[in-house]
Amino acid sequence: MATVDLKQWPVGQDLPPLSKVVTRVQIARYAGASGDFNPIHVDDEFARMVGLGGVIAHGLLTMGIASQAVSEWAGSPLAVKKLKVRFSGMVRPGDTVTIHGRINSTNGNEFTLDVWADTQTGEQVLTKGVAIVVL
Amino acid sequence: MATVDLKQWPVGQDLPPLSKVVTRVQIARYAGASGDFNPIHVDDEFARMVGLGGVIAHGLLTMGIASQAVSEWAGSPLAVKKLKVRFSGMVRPGDTVTIHGRINSTNGNEFTLDVWADTQTGEQVLTKGVAIVVL
Repeated sequence: MATVDLKQWPVGQDLPPLSKVVTRVQIARYAGASGDFNPIHVDDEFARMVGLGGVIAHGLLTMGIASQAVSEWAGSPLAVKKLKVRFSGMVRPGDTVTIHGRINSTNGNEFTLDVWADTQTGEQVLTKGVAIVVL
Repeated sequence: MATVDLKQWPVGQDLPPLSKVVTRVQIARYAGASGDFNPIHVDDEFARMVGLGGVIAHGLLTMGIASQAVSEWAGSPLAVKKLKVRFSGMVRPGDTVTIHGRINSTNGNEFTLDVWADTQTGEQVLTKGVAIVVL
């Protein structure tokens, strides 16, 4: 991801997107870190049984990738004051998640960013995301 | 955390809070899961040097605890459609983070919850949180 200087970046122009491949190992690591071992995330057979067609990533894992993108655009995680997303699709092992962003407005040192995410198929997995960054 | 049935739970009443102690091991696990090895989260000496007084937890780790609380209130992570928080304070190793929630409003099967978090000192670490749950 290219480095940006939000203070120089034009309002309305897309920020450099961040893409990450979500793997089964990463989902297992996230289960361990969060303590969320819901079988829909780690047990393919169970996930098929409940109609999901196989395991899905934790929503917060996808949100974590979004948070990473916003932190990189902001230059520091400490600058990120607010993050909001709507979960709109499921992420599966092997999917490439791409985080998109755009400056919606600025007010002095405060930047309001629109944030969304899709996968390689074009499916939107996070929508209506908003981040507030204070530099 | 007691189990609740949101459909039976009165609007305006506090939901059962969820408390978790944040440890250095958990912060290290979260760094591994997220790939976010910013030294402010894992290197006390560096964190002191930049004026933080020691390492702090990733904001998304705190948000992850909030997500877990909302998933438990909702009965399933799949029911959580939206999550929004404002980061208002730092969480340090050894802190007990408590997630609070309250049903703000309902619209058929959709429940809008107010969510916030504090630590054992009473410091608010997440404020103005909103979750939307669809049962």
